[in-house]
Amino acid sequence: MEPPKALVFDVFGTLVDWRTSIALQLRAFGRSRGLEADWERFVDAWRAAYVPSMERVRRGEIGWANLDALHAASFDDLWRSFGLQSLPPDERTFCVEMWHRLEPWSDVRAGLERLRRRYVVGTLSNGNVALQVDLVRHAGLHFDVLFSAEHFRRYKPDAGTYLGAAELLGLAPAELMLVAAHNGDLAAAASCGLRTAFIARPHEYGPEQRQDLAPEPRIELAARDLVALAEALPSA
Amino acid sequence: MEPPKALVFDVFGTLVDWRTSIALQLRAFGRSRGLEADWERFVDAWRAAYVPSMERVRRGEIGWANLDALHAASFDDLWRSFGLQSLPPDERTFCVEMWHRLEPWSDVRAGLERLRRRYVVGTLSNGNVALQVDLVRHAGLHFDVLFSAEHFRRYKPDAGTYLGAAELLGLAPAELMLVAAHNGDLAAAASCGLRTAFIARPHEYGPEQRQDLAPEPRIELAARDLVALAEALPSA
Repeated sequence: MEPPKALVFDVFGTLVDWRTSIALQLRAFGRSRGLEADWERFVDAWRAAYVPSMERVRRGEIGWANLDALHAASFDDLWRSFGLQSLPPDERTFCVEMWHRLEPWSDVRAGLERLRRRYVVGTLSNGNVALQVDLVRHAGLHFDVLFSAEHFRRYKPDAGTYLGAAELLGLAPAELMLVAAHNGDLAAAASCGLRTAFIARPHEYGPEQRQDLAPEPRIELAARDLVALAEALPSA
Repeated sequence: MEPPKALVFDVFGTLVDWRTSIALQLRAFGRSRGLEADWERFVDAWRAAYVPSMERVRRGEIGWANLDALHAASFDDLWRSFGLQSLPPDERTFCVEMWHRLEPWSDVRAGLERLRRRYVVGTLSNGNVALQVDLVRHAGLHFDVLFSAEHFRRYKPDAGTYLGAAELLGLAPAELMLVAAHNGDLAAAASCGLRTAFIARPHEYGPEQRQDLAPEPRIELAARDLVALAEALPSA
């Protein structure tokens, strides 16, 4: 197996456990304000709202809006639909920026550190740059470079994101590998000529998860976690 | 003094000693090929060629070309003008990529590490992304984020670079501080509303350096090196 020249990582779900992290933060926030709700259901709905709002940007129905802006807009709708009283601006910002403070899965710090010794490692995420900066600092992760949908003003799975990252790294698509827990992301990257590695995150969407439990056949490599990926990849 | 929310650093000259690093690499390369030249004079001429070639991009006389491309074009002209025989493509690439392998000044690793504990730290350099990725890995530096002229398709001192970095960080210009060894860079950043810190690098251009020996009056803060900067800046 020919080693790739660089690895880029999907972030939400692949590296960080957004569901548990946001539910914990919402629960603590709710408790401090005397608010009650099914916070797991809230975070599931919040995450689900990201796809249609992003699709509206991708289809050009609304102008470019970064992920913080999309999270803020869907937060307001959801907050109302859960029957909660509207928040003062600073508390709303505090909630929206819960997406900047997510915990990594337990293998991520050690696995990434091993991979970074041998490969250039970057993110490739729909999260905006400021979100990613806060997130990697909060999670104690060390990347050589961050790539964001915001750099390209296109959201994954648009080809411009995968090809844009390869171009900025000075690499041919086939020299770059995307690491992700989502078959759709990996299939889009493969269509652009990138190499692909699947990491199983069977609890990303909670105990009832049905999707992305196993890699689709077209994906080159599958690993249990980032430590296993470091073991499976040859030396660069 | 109100602390800034993030610091961005100029790279060439401010963090790394390009002149000594390139001259050493050229001398070793020349020796291995039996070539002789005044390599310090070569590197000075190579660095000097960067300004007019970048100005041609800035004025729109030529389309966007990243710094690797500008270094490659000026290398060919210079190599000929020094009476040296043209190189095979892989050796030419090896020479152009000497700019990816530069040594940091002795204070940089320790000073940056101290600053990164308290502040978001990024680069803001005319070096292209791939160049910066290699450079920070080679030099063992740890940034939260890299900002490049290539992201904005504008070279410093265009306002779009300073304001682009602030926007991607989600900050107002006055919340971001540029750290640089060059008065021109800092003056342009100040015109955009950024805060400014001058680091003296009196040997960047060799023993005869006449420029940028001291900060101009408009600059907010001056420090001997990055460790002194960490001491001078308040906690964020």
